Amino acid sequence: MLKVPEHQVAGHQALDGHLGPLIDDSGRFYKPLQSDERGSKEMSFYTSFSSNTRIPEHIRRFFPVFHGTQLVEASDGSGRKPHLVLEDITSGHSKPCVMDIKIGSRTWYPQASEDYIQRCFKKDRETSSLSLGFRVSGLQVYGNKESEVWKPERKVVKRVIGDKVRLVLKQFVSSNPSMDLDSNPDCCYASSVYGGSTGILAQLLELKAWFEDQTTYHFNSCSVLMLYEKKLLGPKEGGSTAAEVKLVDFAHVTEGNGVIDHNFLGGLCSLIKFISEILTNPDEHSPRTCLQDSDKNDFPSENGAAESN
Amino acid sequence: MLKVPEHQVAGHQALDGHLGPLIDDSGRFYKPLQSDERGSKEMSFYTSFSSNTRIPEHIRRFFPVFHGTQLVEASDGSGRKPHLVLEDITSGHSKPCVMDIKIGSRTWYPQASEDYIQRCFKKDRETSSLSLGFRVSGLQVYGNKESEVWKPERKVVKRVIGDKVRLVLKQFVSSNPSMDLDSNPDCCYASSVYGGSTGILAQLLELKAWFEDQTTYHFNSCSVLMLYEKKLLGPKEGGSTAAEVKLVDFAHVTEGNGVIDHNFLGGLCSLIKFISEILTNPDEHSPRTCLQDSDKNDFPSENGAAESN
Repeated sequence: MLKVPEHQVAGHQALDGHLGPLIDDSGRFYKPLQSDERGSKEMSFYTSFSSNTRIPEHIRRFFPVFHGTQLVEASDGSGRKPHLVLEDITSGHSKPCVMDIKIGSRTWYPQASEDYIQRCFKKDRETSSLSLGFRVSGLQVYGNKESEVWKPERKVVKRVIGDKVRLVLKQFVSSNPSMDLDSNPDCCYASSVYGGSTGILAQLLELKAWFEDQTTYHFNSCSVLMLYEKKLLGPKEGGSTAAEVKLVDFAHVTEGNGVIDHNFLGGLCSLIKFISEILTNPDEHSPRTCLQDSDKNDFPSENGAAESN
Repeated sequence: MLKVPEHQVAGHQALDGHLGPLIDDSGRFYKPLQSDERGSKEMSFYTSFSSNTRIPEHIRRFFPVFHGTQLVEASDGSGRKPHLVLEDITSGHSKPCVMDIKIGSRTWYPQASEDYIQRCFKKDRETSSLSLGFRVSGLQVYGNKESEVWKPERKVVKRVIGDKVRLVLKQFVSSNPSMDLDSNPDCCYASSVYGGSTGILAQLLELKAWFEDQTTYHFNSCSVLMLYEKKLLGPKEGGSTAAEVKLVDFAHVTEGNGVIDHNFLGGLCSLIKFISEILTNPDEHSPRTCLQDSDKNDFPSENGAAESN
């Protein structure tokens, strides 16, 4: 009844007998409770957050719904094990384009073991975390042809540093995503996915306002998941993409103790700046290659057909 | 003609034959150009910043005016040495209350030597930098009695971590500052120094808006200097304190390369939150001990005298 999630882009995966999350057909996501303190910390967070009445509703929607824990058959064949039961964010989607971005220039926290701190410290310096305040952990983007999907391997994603991060953020909203990091993404869907009053940028700004104020949780090593439905963006269709932002991975959340999460906030502001620039630098887009109705405005012709076709 | 600055609260000091900054009577501050790359980096920054036409005027005022370099007799008796000639921020003040706050949870930067990185890393963890996103580097606060000044020693300032930082931020705007960190600061001057449309909070928010956007400079290990004139805050006087915010210490500024300074921005937002809370949590103030006219509103009496006297 439970199966391996098709659209997972980062984290442990339940493939080849490994332990990883599972989903069912009713929109639930079963995440194995890690046996070390990470499992108990993530459960503590969900329990605390669920019952915290000071979380505004417009912020709560950025978090997966928590349905408690349940014993289910683990994906590695080790028998029935406790799993967190969460909302399956990609449920109901046909072609979800998903990007997992780990936020913060620092992924460790003072209370962790020295060994853990040193491993994180090294990784933060090797990836874009230190320089940009965030790093890409994984992504999948559907292309225009049926069943074409760009889902770079972990080792490719690891090399996404420096200016390549900007490129990947463009490819995420392009009709021609490509393994070739030197390619020129068309940014066709930038305005409909990143832009608008309900787009990803608007949602990230809502989150930012909350992070400027909340001093309850420090979201160490937590990710922002950006998601939109490619099927709603076909050549004939325009309009809403139901773009969504979610926060995921709370195994390292610590208490805020009256201090804002300045590490998460700084990284979030950096991501916001990158996305704002993709939206406001039209010179760097290549609308000629786009097939959407909205492009007709850029290339007006008497019969209303886009000249670029 | 040149003399040791009386109101310096942090950094190298030109006392006992050591090398340090000097001032003259015309409002200029002479900072020795450190012979290693720190000196050349600080001069590069001032040169670049002075000629950068993209810096808005309302942001430029947060930086000391730069008057070039000049050979002057060094304070350590080593002869004529090159000095940066800057605006003396405390010039014209009689009783300047000053606080130097080093911003950022990380004071090192990727381009530095491994040895430098490890030393900073250790210090950031030992002080409040890592947890709060900033640390107090030094301060002086004038008390109510003539010539009474609270200027804790470096070793005392070093121990200002955790909740003591909140306390010191309160003592900075109190009429009863004290070496005793367990004392109860009255926060008499919080609203006139931190609050108001031209107060320190308003200025920090202006800076924040700029840091959300600017991607030219990364202000590693740079300080926010907060300053107000105590003489304007005597029992009889109220009104403007001419509270000022300045950025100082640019020996470790690096190029932003199109990325915001998320480390500085995060720390700045954390400081802003602390100051906002001091302004908005009246329960934690002790107005009974204040001697200002404004307190009469809290304790109305028929003859208009404050009952707390």
